[in-house]
Parts: sequence; structure tokens; C-alpha cells
Amino acid sequence: MTVFLVGAGPGDPDLITARGLKLLRSCDVLVYDRLVAPELVAEAPHGALAITRERFGQERVNELLVAYGAAGLNVVRLKGGDPFVFGRGGEEALALARAGVPFEVVPGVSALASVPAAAGIPLTHRGVSSQVTVVTGHAFDGGELDVDALASAPGTLVVFMGLAALPRLAAALVTAGRDAHTPAAVISRGTLPDQAVASGTLGEIADLAEGLPSPALVVIGEVVALAEELGIPEKRLRARVEAA
Amino acid sequence: MTVFLVGAGPGDPDLITARGLKLLRSCDVLVYDRLVAPELVAEAPHGALAITRERFGQERVNELLVAYGAAGLNVVRLKGGDPFVFGRGGEEALALARAGVPFEVVPGVSALASVPAAAGIPLTHRGVSSQVTVVTGHAFDGGELDVDALASAPGTLVVFMGLAALPRLAAALVTAGRDAHTPAAVISRGTLPDQAVASGTLGEIADLAEGLPSPALVVIGEVVALAEELGIPEKRLRARVEAA
Repeated sequence: MTVFLVGAGPGDPDLITARGLKLLRSCDVLVYDRLVAPELVAEAPHGALAITRERFGQERVNELLVAYGAAGLNVVRLKGGDPFVFGRGGEEALALARAGVPFEVVPGVSALASVPAAAGIPLTHRGVSSQVTVVTGHAFDGGELDVDALASAPGTLVVFMGLAALPRLAAALVTAGRDAHTPAAVISRGTLPDQAVASGTLGEIADLAEGLPSPALVVIGEVVALAEELGIPEKRLRARVEAA
Repeated sequence: MTVFLVGAGPGDPDLITARGLKLLRSCDVLVYDRLVAPELVAEAPHGALAITRERFGQERVNELLVAYGAAGLNVVRLKGGDPFVFGRGGEEALALARAGVPFEVVPGVSALASVPAAAGIPLTHRGVSSQVTVVTGHAFDGGELDVDALASAPGTLVVFMGLAALPRLAAALVTAGRDAHTPAAVISRGTLPDQAVASGTLGEIADLAEGLPSPALVVIGEVVALAEELGIPEKRLRARVEAA
């Protein structure tokens, strides 16, 4: 009798939380994103109604959640990554709250740290980076970012959904004063079997990443250089494929 | 025959990943942090050697992981939150890599988004915040932060381990130009049954949070105001206790 906004994790179906999996296995209705692993969709009970979200706009998804929730069904809204990190979970939560439908947020492993980890990159590291800034490529394209401030922010910069904007964003950061030799990486389909990583400098990363499939996460900062010791070449982590 | 650096999640033992739980249940050696839930420590096999990390410095922990890993045992290093988000997982990974001991990072749900979520606060929200900056209270005390830049950074500011530094950090941000009326919250023991939340403005948050137990996460930004609709008063989320 509740709507659960559940984070599915970054891609690898084993990275859903124990609680998320339990809820998924007992739901009446499952509304899921395109990027959610098919192995997780298959965990819903046979009798459950499984609806892919892709056919609908956000407004319609909100309406569906409110309607099924108000009908007293157990609804799992399964979202890639974490619902509250660029996941628009807040919009769905607000719609439910305004309609008086009980809901609960079950957090997931965000791509934010897990996808860099799968490429051997820690977001923070003592003596290297003690600050992380997170933005989206859409925000850059929408003129919402203060690129001068981003260029001078210390530590690690992570860009969600940044593949399309990367050539322009990287150039803008360099123009704004960020060193073109800053290490940078693009991790495509992170934590999945066909994960691919492009790694180089900020000045060249857009060229290196050309043609990589989305979803992709961009990481810019000195921590990227740790990957050489931590596993990209040695494949010590779960990073399985490395792009040329 | 591998050392697994596993994120235990933010506190609630149900928020470990399915993969982390599976590895935990089949380990030979478990090395765990003080903040890891006792329910998770209890998931290790009866015959497993369980070692709390607290008695040792980081150097000694690295040595233990290398020694048990090199001996061919299945070692789970269970860390609060995510190993690569202020978790010093990178240091342990480097020690293992340098010793030639195979290891794998199994990411966890970081406190970063999950603890705010448990208090009804999304880190990002369309039209409200499209940027997140993450720092630690230790970095502030160590003089590593550019407070002027932080004060003018748009979006949401999250401070890990920020309770002790909060009176000085909040004052410094206001002095550097951040509006004292900016919404702010401190979430103590987030996602646990005794979670407590202090919520107010940047100008008053240090007073409001006085006496809250650690660990605590500080969130500063307009997204905090969404909590009023999203659940702190209504306790719609898993937030169970609210501090006065």
C-alpha cells in the first residue's frame, strides 16, 4: 500500500540493495526506466504488472504512480542509480506527497562513485582530492553552470550525462583556466560487462571518448591518474573492457 | 583469493548491496569499521575471523589486508558508506595493488544522497539545484577549502563529518557572502532507527544541531526546503525521529 522509489544502482544488477530487491520481489506494479537491467525487471513476481517508463512523459509517470498507489497496490518505481541524484525522484515524491499517497525512498548506489570505482578511480583520495563537484551535461547546455567557478574549483569534477556536451564543456573549462593536462576519463556503461573507458587529459578527452555509447560518466581531476596504479590496465577491478 | 573492499551503506543494514551481502556471507576474514551495523557483522560465517578495524591505524589495516589476501583467503573489508567517497578505500586499494594482491571494489550506497533522502531532501531537483559540491569538515579545519568559492557555488553543498566544524564553517560561509537564510539541515545517524534531523537556516543551523550525535551529514541549499513537503514533518520517508 505504498509507492517505493527504489534506486536500481549503476547498471550491474547485483548492485541493487538488499531492501530494494526484497521490495521488487513482492510488488504488484513495477514501473522501470530503460536503463534498468533486464535481470532486475525479471525479479518482479510473475503476476506483477511491469511498465516501462519510456513511453510516458514525467507528468504521466507521476499520474501512474499516484493512481496505482491510491488504489492500494504495492508499487515499485525502479530508477537507474539513485532516485535523488539527478534521478528526478524528487518530482515523483512531490506528486505523491501532494496526492496524499504514502511513499518511501529506498536509495541506490549512484553512478557517482561506483562507476569511477569500476574504472579504478576513487572520487577522493588523501593528499590528492578532498572535494567533489557534480553537475550534468544538460545543465551546461542549458547555461545553468558557472564555468569559471567550475574551472577553478579544487578536487574532482563529475559530469552526469556529459557525453554529448563533452567537446564544448572541455573546451570551455580550458578556456576558463583549467589546465588542459588535467587527467580526465569517460566511463561508458560503467559496471556492465561491456563497460568501456577512455582516459587521457582534459585537452584530448573529447576526441578519445568519441563514439563511446551512453550512458557515460565524465570524471575530471588528479584522482583519474590513480587508475593507472589501481586497475584500469591490470583489470583488477570489475572494469572489464577498455576502449582504445 | 581476493580482497573485496565492500561498501556497507549508510547505516540501515538492508541498504548493503546484494553482491556485498553475498560476499560477506562467504568470507574467511572480515575487517569492519566501527560504524558498520552489527546485523551485517553477524552475517559473516560462524567460522570467519571478524576483526574490528578500530584498534589499528590505517597502515596496519593495509598490512592486514595484504597479509590475509596474500595467504589466499577470501577477505571482506566492510566500510561504512562507499569505499571511494571519503572512505579511504583508495589507500587500501593502492596498498593491495602495490603488493600484487588481487582485489575488487564493491561499491555501496554512500551517505551522500541516501542520508538526505531519509530526511526528505533530494540533492538535486529540477529548477532548484542542478549542482552538488561535496567536502569534509576535516578539509575545512585543515585549511584545504576555498570558502569564498564554496560560498558562491550554486546548488547544494554537502559536508561529511561536519558536525564539529559546523559553527565555524557556517559562520565562514556567511562571512564569505552566502545568504544566512539559506535552508540547511543536519541529519544525525541517517537511515538508522534513531535518526535525528535539525533543520533551519544556515545562520542558525549550528545552534539547532548542537548535541546531535555523530555521524552526521550537513546539507546546505534550497533543496532542504523541499523536505517540508517531502516528509520530515509527515515522516513519510524512513526518517523516524526528528530532533527538536
